[in-house]
Amino acid sequence: MKKIGVVLSGCGVRDGSEIHEAVLTLLAIDQCGAEAVCMAPDIEFPETDHLTMQETGAKRNVLVESARIARGNIRNIKEIKAADLDAIVLPGGFGAAKNLCDFAMKGAAASVNSEVARLLKEMAAAKKPIGAICIAPVVIAAVLGKELAPTVTIGNDAATAAEIEKTGAVHQECPVTSVIVDCDKMIVTTPAYMLANRISQVYEGIGKCVKDVYSLIS
Amino acid sequence: MKKIGVVLSGCGVRDGSEIHEAVLTLLAIDQCGAEAVCMAPDIEFPETDHLTMQETGAKRNVLVESARIARGNIRNIKEIKAADLDAIVLPGGFGAAKNLCDFAMKGAAASVNSEVARLLKEMAAAKKPIGAICIAPVVIAAVLGKELAPTVTIGNDAATAAEIEKTGAVHQECPVTSVIVDCDKMIVTTPAYMLANRISQVYEGIGKCVKDVYSLIS
Repeated sequence: MKKIGVVLSGCGVRDGSEIHEAVLTLLAIDQCGAEAVCMAPDIEFPETDHLTMQETGAKRNVLVESARIARGNIRNIKEIKAADLDAIVLPGGFGAAKNLCDFAMKGAAASVNSEVARLLKEMAAAKKPIGAICIAPVVIAAVLGKELAPTVTIGNDAATAAEIEKTGAVHQECPVTSVIVDCDKMIVTTPAYMLANRISQVYEGIGKCVKDVYSLIS
Repeated sequence: MKKIGVVLSGCGVRDGSEIHEAVLTLLAIDQCGAEAVCMAPDIEFPETDHLTMQETGAKRNVLVESARIARGNIRNIKEIKAADLDAIVLPGGFGAAKNLCDFAMKGAAASVNSEVARLLKEMAAAKKPIGAICIAPVVIAAVLGKELAPTVTIGNDAATAAEIEKTGAVHQECPVTSVIVDCDKMIVTTPAYMLANRISQVYEGIGKCVKDVYSLIS
């Protein structure tokens, strides 16, 4: 059974992984007949109240909160090597742009969590496919943009696309339920909630993204 | 567009709504072409760390944490009347048995959150369908068991089934991807993670549950 890593960044659209995207990624992996290997970095982040959408001033832990989505079946990303995986997928949510890296604050000048960057570089060096959903392609661009110049999508947001292109990556617009596949670089991206207003659109786009990632390893 | 209420109980299998079940309920509702109306009670609960699966001693709020699953689009259940809804669905997770009621501690002698009980009684009186997933049928049994004697399932756990029958409800065993439909009482239940070991099984069972609920109103 092929193993697909899922990099989580917390549990909630405003301060972690977008929950629908993360769950639908796990579903799509299971529907392919592959095994999901959930992981997250063991770091703190500022909590956002999702009722008021305001920061509370309190801190939570990315690994501990991500464990909610994984039903406790999760690893510290620092323990995972590319050799443990056949492919890797990053769901979206602000956590991807605020916890896995600081793209939300710094754009193309973002620095990326060292373990996330290490694993993505290992995967690219091993020519293993990478999927990224919603805003998470900014993490791929920040780590691999200069070296690989991959083509990715975050939908059609011009400001974000411009920052992505400053990294060396190429941005291509994409409709909500479609994917952009860079076959040569083995990178598959889909807009999900960057554009979606219905969860069934997210299901369709992520289903295609994961299926395309899986087709590159099977 | 038909409106289907979704009663959440937090955000995480051990102290709230089971996240996969809640998200797949929202997906199934959207796939039916109906609108989900997320709601939760505004009450505190004891937090469980989902990495260690131990209680931390801290408190969180059911409505605030449920808002993570609902992407902020959620109402306090006390504001919702049966007249606002065409049907209602309760996803599972320990939150259903610990936050919406205290069945996890007291079995058939459970008391139910007053607003949850009120709304379920209103729905039954209005002959509007109720769906319940995983362990959540215990809430239905605790509120409506004596009056309606509905037939429900939580899969095949004998001890839980026995407690359900003490309320006056009837328990029927059910395979993981199937549903028990009590057409007369308008109650549809499915085992989900009471039995599932794969998320694709949960998707299938919840899909059928929501579709059957929807068929009773369309």
